[in-house]
Formats: sequence, structure tokens, C-alpha cells
Amino acid sequence: MDFAADVTADRGHDVAVGPRPCPGGDGQRGLGLVEEELARFFADAKLRAASIGPPYLRLWEALERAADGGGRARPRLVLLAYHHLGGGDERAAALLAASYELLHTALLVHDDVIDRDLVRRGVPNVSGRYRGRALRAGADPAAADHAGASAGLLAGDLALAGAYRLLRRIEATRDVEDRLHDILDDALFSSVGGEVYDVELSHASATPSVEDLAKTAHRKTSVYSFEAPLRAGVVLAGAPARTTDALQRFGRDAGIAYQLVDDVLGVFGDPASTGKAGCSDLREGKRTVLLAYAASRPEWAGVAHLVGSPGLGPADAARIRRLLTECGARDYAVDLAAGHAERALAALESDCVPAPLRDRLRDLLLAVVSRVRPR
Amino acid sequence: MDFAADVTADRGHDVAVGPRPCPGGDGQRGLGLVEEELARFFADAKLRAASIGPPYLRLWEALERAADGGGRARPRLVLLAYHHLGGGDERAAALLAASYELLHTALLVHDDVIDRDLVRRGVPNVSGRYRGRALRAGADPAAADHAGASAGLLAGDLALAGAYRLLRRIEATRDVEDRLHDILDDALFSSVGGEVYDVELSHASATPSVEDLAKTAHRKTSVYSFEAPLRAGVVLAGAPARTTDALQRFGRDAGIAYQLVDDVLGVFGDPASTGKAGCSDLREGKRTVLLAYAASRPEWAGVAHLVGSPGLGPADAARIRRLLTECGARDYAVDLAAGHAERALAALESDCVPAPLRDRLRDLLLAVVSRVRPR
Repeated sequence: MDFAADVTADRGHDVAVGPRPCPGGDGQRGLGLVEEELARFFADAKLRAASIGPPYLRLWEALERAADGGGRARPRLVLLAYHHLGGGDERAAALLAASYELLHTALLVHDDVIDRDLVRRGVPNVSGRYRGRALRAGADPAAADHAGASAGLLAGDLALAGAYRLLRRIEATRDVEDRLHDILDDALFSSVGGEVYDVELSHASATPSVEDLAKTAHRKTSVYSFEAPLRAGVVLAGAPARTTDALQRFGRDAGIAYQLVDDVLGVFGDPASTGKAGCSDLREGKRTVLLAYAASRPEWAGVAHLVGSPGLGPADAARIRRLLTECGARDYAVDLAAGHAERALAALESDCVPAPLRDRLRDLLLAVVSRVRPR
Repeated sequence: MDFAADVTADRGHDVAVGPRPCPGGDGQRGLGLVEEELARFFADAKLRAASIGPPYLRLWEALERAADGGGRARPRLVLLAYHHLGGGDERAAALLAASYELLHTALLVHDDVIDRDLVRRGVPNVSGRYRGRALRAGADPAAADHAGASAGLLAGDLALAGAYRLLRRIEATRDVEDRLHDILDDALFSSVGGEVYDVELSHASATPSVEDLAKTAHRKTSVYSFEAPLRAGVVLAGAPARTTDALQRFGRDAGIAYQLVDDVLGVFGDPASTGKAGCSDLREGKRTVLLAYAASRPEWAGVAHLVGSPGLGPADAARIRRLLTECGARDYAVDLAAGHAERALAALESDCVPAPLRDRLRDLLLAVVSRVRPR
């Protein structure tokens, strides 16, 4: 399962949804500073790790690779909110944004351990690299799996500590600093809670309800990917509580819409643009709203056994896709996503959200949702 | 392997080495406040977790049990340094001490995942509980192992975030707060580095050198268990840098001495007082200074194959113990521990360490070392 799918993960979307220059600061320059803070964080850590020895340096290098190559979706949201709400401390914003990127990295790396995934963004992840290394050194497959999982666990710990470390470097008022820490804490708390439910649902014999799936995805991914970065950007900018509330409501529904879109693309998307193998979600038996909807249909009985089967091939996948379309599951999921997107947009219709920020968030959301609109 | 053996883990030692009432504050009252902070932390988290649902509450309960039952060795060191150096903010000291207890818990829980240990302090640990639960629900052993590891991973993440959360609540000057965060960061950095080496050494075909083993144990355990809590207590008390340096040097050598004693007790100790099964270290093939020393002896060839063998029984263990004694490995390890203990005591011989603090640290160290002195 996808603990923390990279929002607009494919690099092709970066330009379309990245912040444009805006009155409060230049989006590209802001992102450049985020990259600088991340680069400085890793350079410092690698220098210290090298003084302990090559194996530790190697782990840091693997972690740095894991933090690289994403769309920087969370930093973009932090900067978007911050700059459009009049924030002017570029370094503080960059530290805050980089902190969320490290939290994201920690959650991705640990999620891959839990899901036993060895590939991320098309290349071996931390666990995959260490597993491969152990195999080449002569370990048996079970021992190599464990070596991979252990490396992933340790690397994720370092990234999590890094998120707190970067946040700590922000100099603001005590009250703002405390609130930023609370938001990060809440985000981690929610993500782990969502992950616990995700694991529970994956073990349950019955197909979970649409509602349970949506709640789990929200806790596991939306809170830390959408709500928290937006809230944090607002708080650092010193905007009023009403603005925080509006953006949090936007983030909540936008996150759920994103998750639904991602589920639809995981089954119906073009592997070339989603970066996922065409039938991996089906082969893994990922529990999605699509499947929850279809499970109540009598015709589903004919294909249910294929979902989650390691031997699932392209012909099986095509059969399942056809059935998901015919029984209305695809339309249901797309409509549900559109409904959440509309609610998200409604949350922005408030005089406490400046028009340029509203426009940018709307563009971002429409770019996400339009990926499944045309059939 | 023992990532983070609980210093003076058995409760029987708590009274002997705990802080006595001292001019700067009452040690027992200080520890009581630490328990209060930990209880408050868990009560708050459980309340929030319950609002997400029973499975999340269950994970928090498992984590709380993991944080319970230790000797609170790290909090004791924080309080000892703080109170004897004139610190007067009891709440800040309790938060700092509780933060180190949560860091310890995080490292223990994650180390158990890496070592595939299912029992800690004689009862099932987080992974052991979740593994058992999965088995009872009908999972096969491999799936149950994975369920246990996943729960341990998530619980450890929560404890690690908790360590930062409690530290954040301390109100001191910006400079002191920054230094406290740096010390915690350094401790985690060192522990993970030590763990990486520990994993490397356990996979190496050759027996590691005495020096490599000592360095690894120092990084993995001593830094966060001895040096960091003492340094943090000194910094919070506002004592001069020379005092920090002296206590750090004490912590370093005391930690190595402790680790050596622990290794000797792991093989020669009375299971009733160490809380470990009498031959578990030998059965696991734990790489210790004892074994590194013995490996260079020709007579070792006759028993080397037994170490690390799952079928190792009491008669084998007795044979290995006899050989370790006869070849001088036991004396070597005990003498090495005594040498580090002497260096640790020498570090205290400075006018910047108040006599009552020196006395207390000496008592503590002697209590540790004397556990292997009498043969």
C-alpha cells in the first residue's frame, strides 16, 4: 500500500502545479532554498557519518537518495501558503518546507519496510539496495530481506530525527515555534494512526467499507501531505486562525480527492505517466474504494480471487478493469473525488484566503483531479 | 545483540545506585516527577489515539508497557548531574529526563525489531505481543513475524517523536534549548551509527577486534545512556563547559566499563539477577570482547562452532564458560572494565565536579563494576 504517495509524484507535473512567482516571494527561489537546506543537512550528516566509518556514510547516502527525486509537493504547499500570506523570512520557510520533506522521506522509507516494497520511483529503495547488497555478499533471501528492512528502519529514524532538527532551527516567536512543533507532531501522530489502520484493514477478511478506506487514507497521507504543510505555512506567516481553518479544510478534502485519484490511476492509469507498474496495485490487492464498491456486486465474485494474487497477469488485469468500469466502480470513485475537490474549493471561498492563493490552490487541485476526468 | 541494555536493568539495583537526597534537590522526588511526565505523555497520547480507534490505542498501550519496568538509569543520570550542579527547575529537569527515557524506549523497541527479539525484561515486547496476536488470529509464522516487526517499527517512531516532543516543552534560554536539542540529536546519531556497525560486525565472517567491539558498543549504547544524559543535565543546570567535558569523559569510560560488565554477566552472570537466560548471549552468538579474545586461542577451535548455534544447551554453555575462564578471556574483560572504570573516576578528579556529585557517580560506577569483581 502507498503510505505516502508523492503528491503529483511524476516530475512532469512539477511545473504545472509548482508555485508561480507571487507578491510575497518567488516560488522557484523558495524551492531552491529548500534544496539548499536539504543539501546542507545531508552534507553535514555525511561528514559526521564518514568520521564514524564507511558503512554509516553508506546509509546516509542511501537516505539522501530516498529524499531525492520526489515532486517536493509538501515544501511547495508550505511555501505557497507562506508567501501568499505575506511571510518574508525565506530561510525560516525553507527550513519548515525541508522539515516536511524529511518527514515525508521518513514515512516513505518506513512504509516501504512495512509493505515489503523494494522499489520506489522506479529504482531500488533503501531496503532494496541493502537487500541487493546482502544477496551479493552471499546472504540467503530471508537474511537479505531482513538486512534490507533493518537498513530501512534505521534510515527512516534518521530522517524523522532530521525533520525535528530542521524545525528546531527556525527562529520565530516562542508561540509560533510551539505551534509549528505541534503541527508536525500531530502530522506524525495521524500518519502512524492511519498506518495502523491500514495494516488492520489489510489483514481483515472482509472488504473494508468505503468510509473506512477514506478515513484511513486521510489519516495516513492527507494530514501530513496537505493539511499540515498548509497549516504550518499559515502559522509561520502569522496569518489569523480563520485562514488556518480554511486551508486545513481545503487540505483535508483535497487530500482525500488526491488519494481517490491515485487509486483510480493505480488501476487505470498509464504506467508511463504514473510511474507505477500497470497492475501492481491489483497484484498487491491494494484495498481501494474501487474494490470496496465492486465487492458488493454479484459479478465481482468471478474476479475477486485474482486480486492480490502474485500471478496476476495483464489479461487478468484487463478483465478486472473492464468489470470495475462496467459495474460503475470507476465512475463512483471519480465522482467521489470530484465531490471532495468541490468541497475543497468551497473552503477557499472565504475573504480570509487571498485571491492569488485561492487561484494557485485551485490550479493545483484541478491538475490533480483532471488526471482522471477525461476517459 | 543488546542495542541499549538497561543500565543496572534489574530493579534490585535501583535503590543502590539511585540518587540520594542532595543539596540541589531530592532525587526521589525528581524521579517521581519524571514518572508523572511520562504518565502525562502517555495519557494524552492514549486519549488522542482512542479517538482514532481501538487498534491505535492498543499500539500506544503496548508502547507504554515497553517504556515501563526499566531502571530509569538515564533519567537518574540527568537528575543527578542537574541537581548536584545547582539546577532548580524541577519540571524542566523531569521533562529532560523523561525525554531520554523515551529515546531509550525508541531505541530498545527498534533494536528488538532488528535483532528479531520478542522478549524484553522477561515479557513479550511490542513485536512479541503483536506477533502473538497475529498467530492467534490465524496468521502463518512468517506473516506473524512481519506483523510484530511492523508494530515495533511504528511504536518506536512514536517514542522517538515523543522524545523530541518532551524536550520541546522545556523552557530555558534559546542557547540552552538549542544545546539540549543538539545533545539529543548527537545521541541518536551516534546510536544509529553504532547499530549500523553492530549489524556489519554480526555479518562479518571474521571475529571483530576488541577495539571494534568497544567502539561499536560505545557509539550504540554509552553515548545515549551515559554521556548524553549527563551532558544534558549539566547544560540545563548552566554549569561551565569544563564540567560538561569532565562528565562526558566520565560517561564515556563508565559506559564502556558497563558494556564490558554486561557482556561478562551475559555469559557468567546468575540468570536470576541479570534477567537474561543463562546461555542466551552464547546461543545468539553475541560478539563480545570475551569471544574476540578467545578467538585468537588455539583451544577455541573446539567450541567455536557451538557459539551462535540455536541448539546450544547448558552443557555446551558450561564448556564454553570453562574455556573462556581458562584461556584468560574472562579476566581480560574484567580487567579491561576495571581500567575503563579507573579512567572514568580519574575524569571526576577535577575541581569543577562538586564532591557530592563525584561521590554519587563513583558509587554508581562501583555498583556496576563490582557485579563482576568477586569470582
